[in-house]
Amino acid sequence: MRNLVLLLIVSLALASNAVAADDLRKEAFESDLRPIPSDRAILNKLIGNPDKKQVELGKKLFFDPRLSKSGLISCNTCHNLATGGVDGVASAIGHKWTSNPHNLGSPTVYNAVFSSVQMWDGRFPDLEEQAKGPISAGPEMASPPELVVERIKSIPAYVQEFKRAFPKDKDPATFDNVARAIAAFERTLVTPSRFDKFLNGDDKALTKKQRSGLKVFIAKGCVGCHTGIGVGGGSMQPFPMTDNPYKYANIGDFKGNKEGLVKVPTLRNITQTAPYFHNGAVWSLKEAVRIMGKTQLDADLSDNEASDIVAFLGSLKGKKPSITYPVLPESTDETPRPDAE
Amino acid sequence: MRNLVLLLIVSLALASNAVAADDLRKEAFESDLRPIPSDRAILNKLIGNPDKKQVELGKKLFFDPRLSKSGLISCNTCHNLATGGVDGVASAIGHKWTSNPHNLGSPTVYNAVFSSVQMWDGRFPDLEEQAKGPISAGPEMASPPELVVERIKSIPAYVQEFKRAFPKDKDPATFDNVARAIAAFERTLVTPSRFDKFLNGDDKALTKKQRSGLKVFIAKGCVGCHTGIGVGGGSMQPFPMTDNPYKYANIGDFKGNKEGLVKVPTLRNITQTAPYFHNGAVWSLKEAVRIMGKTQLDADLSDNEASDIVAFLGSLKGKKPSITYPVLPESTDETPRPDAE
Repeated sequence: MRNLVLLLIVSLALASNAVAADDLRKEAFESDLRPIPSDRAILNKLIGNPDKKQVELGKKLFFDPRLSKSGLISCNTCHNLATGGVDGVASAIGHKWTSNPHNLGSPTVYNAVFSSVQMWDGRFPDLEEQAKGPISAGPEMASPPELVVERIKSIPAYVQEFKRAFPKDKDPATFDNVARAIAAFERTLVTPSRFDKFLNGDDKALTKKQRSGLKVFIAKGCVGCHTGIGVGGGSMQPFPMTDNPYKYANIGDFKGNKEGLVKVPTLRNITQTAPYFHNGAVWSLKEAVRIMGKTQLDADLSDNEASDIVAFLGSLKGKKPSITYPVLPESTDETPRPDAE
Repeated sequence: MRNLVLLLIVSLALASNAVAADDLRKEAFESDLRPIPSDRAILNKLIGNPDKKQVELGKKLFFDPRLSKSGLISCNTCHNLATGGVDGVASAIGHKWTSNPHNLGSPTVYNAVFSSVQMWDGRFPDLEEQAKGPISAGPEMASPPELVVERIKSIPAYVQEFKRAFPKDKDPATFDNVARAIAAFERTLVTPSRFDKFLNGDDKALTKKQRSGLKVFIAKGCVGCHTGIGVGGGSMQPFPMTDNPYKYANIGDFKGNKEGLVKVPTLRNITQTAPYFHNGAVWSLKEAVRIMGKTQLDADLSDNEASDIVAFLGSLKGKKPSITYPVLPESTDETPRPDAE
């Protein structure tokens, strides 16, 4: 009899737990939070069905430091796939150790495919356009498009691979196709996480604390901007939105876009991408959460609320795609030499 | 009848080819050229039976830019496994874009396990000692050992991994063990090539031109220094050895070791590791071969001889081990921050 009562209590607790989880899931969907599709075909369509040959070529280019003038900086230098798709420094450092002139950090390349705006000022609509920027920017990789093309064309194995990846093009090894191939690779960099499992119906995918955090995240209005599959990445917003006294030190001359708006970043893998904010001014995720509450929502989050949100954000840490480090085709005597000046 | 004669001629030609190949192989062995063992157990013993857990940890450390003061430079930055284990620049560039003060290039990390001396001045006997140098050197990764240990110890997943990799140590996360793990990984970076197939008995592994090149390579005396499994890496030698007029531009204050000797580098993967010589003064492999002939052997190689040797050197381009790019454990609020200054 005692065992029966115990069983009943446990069953009721589990059932109420399941109801609570269902309610929370419903709330999340109503707030436009969406999972990365677990169905491969649906996901492939969503990320633009990248061509396999372009992906493979793009992976090589992404890791190839010869895309930079110095021969030392690859896309992966600042968007390091080993460290959450970022460099972990406040202000990106590029050619000749130049710090980003606007004091901007490198956004993560993981799940960037789910962002409808690229760059902190949102000036590019997609990865194809974005990829060209840093390669040629003087303080980043500092390679004029002509140099990139000249390097590629001097390496026969690359030329062959461009032909295979862009079979319809008469002149496949172009700067645009370099960017297209890199973007094709980047489109595959999606990282499903425990949060997706939860949204897809697995009640146990989140801990109690993480579910509390998700509740607060929704209730306080964080979902006003951090929504969609990317949990962010879908809009430009004022920053700060309220008259908050928090001072963003040292942001150079960055004023956002011409309307003064700043891109809302994805929160996926956020526990791996410190420091935070476009200028990397804050290193603690909990502090960043509290500042965001105050700055954007005029909400004074309690220590518990902030800590629960941080726990929830931990559930956005996703499984990274397995990447075989490429062996790159070798330079020839004709390859324009690296120039560190 | 005509067919029979043809068959006889072809058979004789093949037989004489086989005899020629056997003779050449014998000559190669007599010159102390040795293959990378194809037997896995023999090879494992030869490379020091690296511990699997140390290898896995060492791979992570090798790719981890947080080993550098700036958080931006990893071992792989200069010893890039995608580009022959080198950075492809004449003089290595490190912390704050500092060029190597002696104008020395980064030697390849592939097959470095077969070298009995490490560094251009040969000051380290093995990979374990070598690994510590660049991490702490001011113009390279610029991390004092204490900083490296503090960073590691602030990352719980790393601490756990050090415990598993060094189970007998009371305090496993030490600077020495960082170097030991990196060296364990580096010991696995061997690249068997067509030349090894040839030495192991496959007559067809080398083209006719490559065999001619090997013959010249032996006959001219290149094997005086470039021997062993590494085809180099086994001795310190004067450079130049003869009174050659060739001027090595811009070598800083590098004078070799205290006897004025310079390390003989491995020639494995040499087609992928331009520029050549310790100061990266020469970009064309053919030119480098001719200079070496003149400088070290007082031999004026003909254009054909040099070109045959280059073809032979191409047979030393090996198959690189497949490496899954690591996902590194994330930093915490306690992790000492990157410092680019």
